[in-house]
Amino acid sequence: MKLHHIIEAQQFNSSTLLYIFDTAFEMEHVVAHGGTVEFQKRIMATLFYEPSTRTRFSFETAMHRLGGRVISTENAGEFSSVAKGETLEDTVQILNGYADVIVIRHYEVGAAKRASAISKAPIINAGDGAGQHPTQALLDLYTIRKEIGAIDGLKIAMVGDLAQGRTVRSLTYLLSKYQDIKIYFVAPTLLKMKEDILEHLRERNIWYTEETDLDKVLPEVDVVYQTRIQKERFGDRIADYEKCRGVYVIDRHTLSLMKEKSIIMHPLPRLDEISMEVDSDPRAAYFRQAQNGLYVRMALLSAVFS
Amino acid sequence: MKLHHIIEAQQFNSSTLLYIFDTAFEMEHVVAHGGTVEFQKRIMATLFYEPSTRTRFSFETAMHRLGGRVISTENAGEFSSVAKGETLEDTVQILNGYADVIVIRHYEVGAAKRASAISKAPIINAGDGAGQHPTQALLDLYTIRKEIGAIDGLKIAMVGDLAQGRTVRSLTYLLSKYQDIKIYFVAPTLLKMKEDILEHLRERNIWYTEETDLDKVLPEVDVVYQTRIQKERFGDRIADYEKCRGVYVIDRHTLSLMKEKSIIMHPLPRLDEISMEVDSDPRAAYFRQAQNGLYVRMALLSAVFS
Amino acid sequence: MKLHHIIEAQQFNSSTLLYIFDTAFEMEHVVAHGGTVEFQKRIMATLFYEPSTRTRFSFETAMHRLGGRVISTENAGEFSSVAKGETLEDTVQILNGYADVIVIRHYEVGAAKRASAISKAPIINAGDGAGQHPTQALLDLYTIRKEIGAIDGLKIAMVGDLAQGRTVRSLTYLLSKYQDIKIYFVAPTLLKMKEDILEHLRERNIWYTEETDLDKVLPEVDVVYQTRIQKERFGDRIADYEKCRGVYVIDRHTLSLMKEKSIIMHPLPRLDEISMEVDSDPRAAYFRQAQNGLYVRMALLSAVFS
Repeated sequence: MKLHHIIEAQQFNSSTLLYIFDTAFEMEHVVAHGGTVEFQKRIMATLFYEPSTRTRFSFETAMHRLGGRVISTENAGEFSSVAKGETLEDTVQILNGYADVIVIRHYEVGAAKRASAISKAPIINAGDGAGQHPTQALLDLYTIRKEIGAIDGLKIAMVGDLAQGRTVRSLTYLLSKYQDIKIYFVAPTLLKMKEDILEHLRERNIWYTEETDLDKVLPEVDVVYQTRIQKERFGDRIADYEKCRGVYVIDRHTLSLMKEKSIIMHPLPRLDEISMEVDSDPRAAYFRQAQNGLYVRMALLSAVFS
Repeated sequence: MKLHHIIEAQQFNSSTLLYIFDTAFEMEHVVAHGGTVEFQKRIMATLFYEPSTRTRFSFETAMHRLGGRVISTENAGEFSSVAKGETLEDTVQILNGYADVIVIRHYEVGAAKRASAISKAPIINAGDGAGQHPTQALLDLYTIRKEIGAIDGLKIAMVGDLAQGRTVRSLTYLLSKYQDIKIYFVAPTLLKMKEDILEHLRERNIWYTEETDLDKVLPEVDVVYQTRIQKERFGDRIADYEKCRGVYVIDRHTLSLMKEKSIIMHPLPRLDEISMEVDSDPRAAYFRQAQNGLYVRMALLSAVFS
Repeated sequence: MKLHHIIEAQQFNSSTLLYIFDTAFEMEHVVAHGGTVEFQKRIMATLFYEPSTRTRFSFETAMHRLGGRVISTENAGEFSSVAKGETLEDTVQILNGYADVIVIRHYEVGAAKRASAISKAPIINAGDGAGQHPTQALLDLYTIRKEIGAIDGLKIAMVGDLAQGRTVRSLTYLLSKYQDIKIYFVAPTLLKMKEDILEHLRERNIWYTEETDLDKVLPEVDVVYQTRIQKERFGDRIADYEKCRGVYVIDRHTLSLMKEKSIIMHPLPRLDEISMEVDSDPRAAYFRQAQNGLYVRMALLSAVFS
C-alpha cells in the first residue's frame, strides 16, 4: 500500500489503518534488531515552525532506524526566508528540490494542507495549531489495539481538557469507524467535549455519555485516556485554570477502582494529573504509548517511500 | 581537479568553472539515482553565525546525497565559546580537529577569508555579510548555462536592488570573464549598481547600460534576473523603501514582452516582486535555480574532497 | 570492558582509566582512516539544556566517526514539554524509547545522576552546572599521558580561577589516584582552590603547594594548566573580576621560563590569558588537547555500546 500526504485522521479508512498497524508491528521487530538500511538514500526534512523536540525526535529516530538521512530545523519561523516574508508555499517548493519527504509542524490550522496542495514530495502533518496531529491519533489507536487486543467493543474514558485537546478530538473521530465503541467523556463543565464531535457520534450511532465523576466510570472502562489541563489555553483566566486543574488526578486510589486488564494512556507531557506512584503499575501504558509513536512513524515513512 | 578553500567568486578561472559545471551536471544524475555513498567517511561542519536555513539545508542535503555526515549549528553567535569571547580563529582551529570541511556563514565581511588563513580543513564561504556568497554566484551561472545553452553572447537584465544586493555584484563579476556579454542594469535611482562594478566592466570592455524602464529592456534579453528590495537595508528610511518597492514587478504583462526562449531568475526569497501567476510559466526558472544550488554544492564538496 | 552511565570522575579506577586511554589511542588510528561503521545501528541523543556547541560537536563527531546516528537538541530547556513543566525524568524516560545512549548537559548540579537513576539507556554527563564534566577530566588526563609519557611523577601547575573552575577540581581528583604527583596551585587570593579538594589531597598524602607567583613555578613543572577567569561567575563584582583578570598571562616570557619538554594546557575557550604568539610553540598543547576530546569520547561511546 502506498501513502502520499498524511494530513488528517479522517483520511484513513479501515483497511489503510490495518495496513499501518501491521507495518508498525513489523517495525517493532526491525527496531529490536537495530533498524534497517533500506531507505539509506532517502532524506527527510523536519520543517518545524514551532519547537516540539519530542515529536521531532520521534520522527528523526524513525527515519534513522529506517537508514535514512535528516535535515532539520525547529525554528522555521525564524527561517531567514520566512523572516523576510517568504510564503509557506515557496519554502515547501524549494524543499521539494532537497528532500524526499517533508514533516511539517506549524502554528496555523490548515498549514499542512496548504503545503500538500503544491508539494510533489509527501507532506506529513506533525501538528498544525489547534487543528490535526494525525500521527498522534494513529499511535493512540495502535496502542489501544496492542494493549487491549482489539478496538471493536472498546470502552474508553476520555478525561480532562476535552474542549481544547486536539488529541481526544482526533482519537474520537478515528474510534467512530469501529464497532460497539462506548465513550465516557469526563470533564469539568468548563472543558466539556464540543458539540461538533458529539453530533458526529450521534450521526454514527456511537454510544457516549458525559460525566463529571471519574470514580463512577473507572470500573467500567478498558482505557482511561488522561489529558493535561493546558494552562496556556486559559490566557489570563487563572481562576478558571486553577478550578479545573487537579480535579482529575490518576493515583493509587484510581488504580484500585480500575479493571485489572485496563490501561492508562496520556499523550504526554504530564504534570501532576498522573501521580508518579502510578508509573510502576503495569497498567501505566503512557511511556509504551510514546514508544509506539516510533513504530507508527516508521510505518508511515515506509508506506510513503514504498 | 582539486579545490581547497572557496572564498570568493573571483578565485575561479574559466577552466575551473567548466570543471565545476561538468561535475554539477554529473551530480544531477547522481541525485536522480538517490545519491552516492562515496564520501561516507567525511564530516562537514556547518558553522553559521546567522541563521540561513535554506543555504544550510542546501549544503547539508548536498553532503547527505554524497553519503557524508553533518554536524551543524545555526546559532554559532551564541556558541557558548563565542559568547565567552572566543575568536573565530580559535573556533575554526578546534573544528579542524572534528570536520573534513567547514561551511561558514558570518555577518562580517572577510570572515571566511580570515578563517581560511588558519584552517587546514577547506573553508567554504556561505555568505559573509555584505561581502561574497560565491556558491550562489556559481549556481546562478550554472543555471544560465543550463537553461540558455551558453554564457558567451548572453543578454541579461539585472533588476531591482543593484546597490545592495551582493548576488548581482558577484554574478556581474563572473560574467565579465565571458565573451560578448550585454548587461542591462534596471534599478530605481536610489538603488543603482555601484561605480566599482561599472568601472570593472569598462576596464574589461563589457557592454552595459543603465535603465529605469524595465518594459523597454524585456524584448531584448535572454535572462531577467529579478531581486528583492531588501527592507532590512533601508533602516528607518521607510519612505525610500516604499518608493523603491513595487516599481518592478514580474507578472503576466512582463511575460508577454519577454522572448519565448528567455528565463526569469531570482535568488529567493521573493515577496511580491514576482507575481505567483508567473510560477506556472516555463520561463519561471527560479525554483529550478534553487534546485541547481544542490548540484553545484555537491560538485564543490566533491572537488574539495577528491 | 563494559561501561554504563558516565556521571563523575570519581567513578573510574586505574584499570578503567587504562582501558579508556588504550581505546582512545586506538581511536586515533580509526579517525586517521576516516572512521568506522561498526556502530551504524546506534543512535545517540544529545539532550543539552544549555548550549555548548563545542562539547556537542565533539560528541556528535565521535558518534559519526563510529558510524552512528545522532538526534540533537541544544535548547532542551525550551523543549516544548519542559516548557510545559515536564520533569527531566519523564523526558529521559521517553528518550529511552528512541536512543541507545543519552548525552546530557544541564545547568543543575546532579541532573545527570538523577537521569541515570531511571534510565536503562546509558547516560553520559556532558557537564552539570558547577558539578562534574567527567569527559573533560578524562581528556585532560589522556593529553598529559600522551604528551608527557606518564602520569606518575607529574609536576603540574594549575593556574587562574581554581575556586570556580570545575575542570581543575575534577582533574585534581583524578590525579590523586596516581603516584608521586606534585601540584602547584597558582591563583589570586580571591580564586584559591577550595578547602575540600586540599583536604582530599592531604588525606591521600599528595604533595601540593599554593602560590601566587607563576614565574617561580614555571621552571619546575611539566604541565602548566591555564584556565579562564570566568567573568560570568563574578556577577556584578566587576572590580574583583578586573583585579583577577590579566594577573597570569601565558606569553613568550612564560615560554622562556618553562622546561623544554613541558606543555601548556587549557580547557578552552581562551580569551587573553594565553597570548596568540604562544600558539606556534610546540609546547602549546591546547588545540591537541581539544582534539583528544574526540578520541576519548569515541572510546567512551565504544565502551558503552560494546
